[in-house]
Amino acid sequence: VHPICFLSDYGLADDFVGLCKGMMLRIAPKATIVDITHEVSGFGVEAGAEILEHATRYMPNDAVYLAVVDPGVGTERRALALQTASENFLVGPDNGLLVPAAESLGGVAAVVSLTNDDYHIQPVSSTFHGRDIFAPAAAHLATGLDLRRLGEPADLASLVRVESPAPKKEGPDTVMATIIGVDRYGNARLSATEEEASLEFGAPLKIEAGEGGGEMPIRYVETFGHSKVGDLVLVPDSHQRLSLSVNQGNASRALGLKAGDRVRLILLKNGPGRTARLEGGPDASS
Amino acid sequence: VHPICFLSDYGLADDFVGLCKGMMLRIAPKATIVDITHEVSGFGVEAGAEILEHATRYMPNDAVYLAVVDPGVGTERRALALQTASENFLVGPDNGLLVPAAESLGGVAAVVSLTNDDYHIQPVSSTFHGRDIFAPAAAHLATGLDLRRLGEPADLASLVRVESPAPKKEGPDTVMATIIGVDRYGNARLSATEEEASLEFGAPLKIEAGEGGGEMPIRYVETFGHSKVGDLVLVPDSHQRLSLSVNQGNASRALGLKAGDRVRLILLKNGPGRTARLEGGPDASS
Amino acid sequence: VHPICFLSDYGLADDFVGLCKGMMLRIAPKATIVDITHEVSGFGVEAGAEILEHATRYMPNDAVYLAVVDPGVGTERRALALQTASENFLVGPDNGLLVPAAESLGGVAAVVSLTNDDYHIQPVSSTFHGRDIFAPAAAHLATGLDLRRLGEPADLASLVRVESPAPKKEGPDTVMATIIGVDRYGNARLSATEEEASLEFGAPLKIEAGEGGGEMPIRYVETFGHSKVGDLVLVPDSHQRLSLSVNQGNASRALGLKAGDRVRLILLKNGPGRTARLEGGPDASS
Repeated sequence: VHPICFLSDYGLADDFVGLCKGMMLRIAPKATIVDITHEVSGFGVEAGAEILEHATRYMPNDAVYLAVVDPGVGTERRALALQTASENFLVGPDNGLLVPAAESLGGVAAVVSLTNDDYHIQPVSSTFHGRDIFAPAAAHLATGLDLRRLGEPADLASLVRVESPAPKKEGPDTVMATIIGVDRYGNARLSATEEEASLEFGAPLKIEAGEGGGEMPIRYVETFGHSKVGDLVLVPDSHQRLSLSVNQGNASRALGLKAGDRVRLILLKNGPGRTARLEGGPDASS
Repeated sequence: VHPICFLSDYGLADDFVGLCKGMMLRIAPKATIVDITHEVSGFGVEAGAEILEHATRYMPNDAVYLAVVDPGVGTERRALALQTASENFLVGPDNGLLVPAAESLGGVAAVVSLTNDDYHIQPVSSTFHGRDIFAPAAAHLATGLDLRRLGEPADLASLVRVESPAPKKEGPDTVMATIIGVDRYGNARLSATEEEASLEFGAPLKIEAGEGGGEMPIRYVETFGHSKVGDLVLVPDSHQRLSLSVNQGNASRALGLKAGDRVRLILLKNGPGRTARLEGGPDASS
Repeated sequence: VHPICFLSDYGLADDFVGLCKGMMLRIAPKATIVDITHEVSGFGVEAGAEILEHATRYMPNDAVYLAVVDPGVGTERRALALQTASENFLVGPDNGLLVPAAESLGGVAAVVSLTNDDYHIQPVSSTFHGRDIFAPAAAHLATGLDLRRLGEPADLASLVRVESPAPKKEGPDTVMATIIGVDRYGNARLSATEEEASLEFGAPLKIEAGEGGGEMPIRYVETFGHSKVGDLVLVPDSHQRLSLSVNQGNASRALGLKAGDRVRLILLKNGPGRTARLEGGPDASS
């Protein structure tokens, strides 16, 4: 039986996650279920797609991914199951959530639309397809059911894709990135990685970001330990992406940042790195 | 070994849930544990009883239910284990929490009071019977222990029952329902289902609810997609109950609603459905 | 395969816990993982050490403990795996988090520093050793890998230890305790147990605590049921430690208490117990 890796935006305050898991264990009693996270927020589908794609590097092999971030539930959006070239499976709505992860798992080998209601739980709720359509499909795949039993084949080219928040090179020294999400500490996660922004630790740099759109000096540091309390810095986050942060402060509150905002990174040719001091003292060279 | 389905109001901020699970796996190392939810709130025992009863439709067969919403811990209330006609088990306090679920699982076949302290973890805390009495009993039942070993038989008629918040028909077109709970988005969950309120989608309807007790036009819609931003609507929730909601708004805050409040639903004979617009614009016919 | 008991301060809002679990199940597909808690707060390392030590009494036997409360991640602090005389294992940072639990599990039999990067996940993040170093080590130990394969032996005497918040006897009737943490209801958990403070239920007592440092009469009660709404009381908590609480109120807010603060407990020779009434009415003898 395959392990099931479960991502959603259901939160843990209600019984949504529990009912999906109960249903899966009713169908696949020996399945192991891993919760990737149930608190996807920020961009929603885009943020969920990024978290799911990243997670594939750390999840068990031969897994079934159940991913439900589904603002279109109750509309005509399709419900999908994908099989990848690496013999992993992904189940969720046709809104772009699954595609980046499928590509990281070797690419899509087969797609079906979950139209076979023999595998739905009746009555199917108009708002909770996680429990009634997606979780049962994931559990049946975990037990080894042939993907094609779940519904009609779908055309790979027909899948909805999310617009990539990939950073854009605007010039030799300028990169425009997007804020994918803001965490509970106020760190703003950018869509760019260190490589995409051509950064080296300690390099002099400025950013344009925030409500006023002003420029601010900033440094790229390996960890907060390489900065002072209140310093505005870029640090690599756990997904190897750049995080716009204030040491022991709240960068998003200080600069008025939110998911979806653009941030321009401008590499400076020379001179020592300067850093804006946002809390705990005046601006300071370092 | 039976799977264990665990519901409580312990929350996840502390180690309460973790200690109960550790204890269960110490006794039943091969048991699978499903968390239904650990954030029961609102009515407390009544809300927990409703969630537990509903969950029985989606949990694995032959399960042991461990349910702890226990405001009376440390008083003389009994600790119980129930066996149902369907060979499921339920463990928890004698405050009404378990009875509706047991009835949905075929009815109670046997009851014991958990008085055999060979199956308690010593020292028994005066405030944490989940860890010291209930979890061990659930784990022993999961391994196949005979229910009667856990304590003295109890009389089914002696069990505490919660007063049902079932809706009351006040006339051919009027139903009085109770708010079972309010979720984090401000949706007020009513005790009535669509059938109990004799509703059809789009039907003209008004409600009496909230601090002022005023009447407001409202429509019953299949999903939020059938309403406009700011509209006050009834929608079926994931438990097939009616939810009093504002599209992209907070119904409970707008109307001053809380768990336990009564809401009167009045079906209108004719005319198009009207809907109060609470946020995003003035009242509007639709 | 050994069960893995997992404690951290990662919270559940992000994917940190999910990525660690995915990685562990990739290495040890048959391992059972128990979440002790992921919301360690208050004192941080000290609070985590206390929760971990206490949890050892309730977790499965022959477990691997993975514990990550790691403010020093990215600095030179060592990463450790410990084997105990009872054949349990503990994995985490060398900051004192693991030592009290190891002592409760029979004492440390062997220690290694996790320097063998064959067992690290590449690339190793500078901020997320839970996923890249600690979780893989725990999973390999769960499958039976010899501890010595994970890195170089370390000297037991070299381990960092947390200063114990153990209560100090200041005189025959006076004990100074430390607040280990404050829970979400405002209860302040003291480092002292009933035995350490020589308390008996109902005994007359006063405390010195809080912003003003003033003295207040208080009673030690078995449960809140033995006090009135608004009463300031000491009650034994689920860890058998004393909790400074207000019946249906918030003791920490009322007295301005926080983790790390000292509280002096002074036993009174005679007279009936008196209790400060902080909410719901004036002071009252009881």
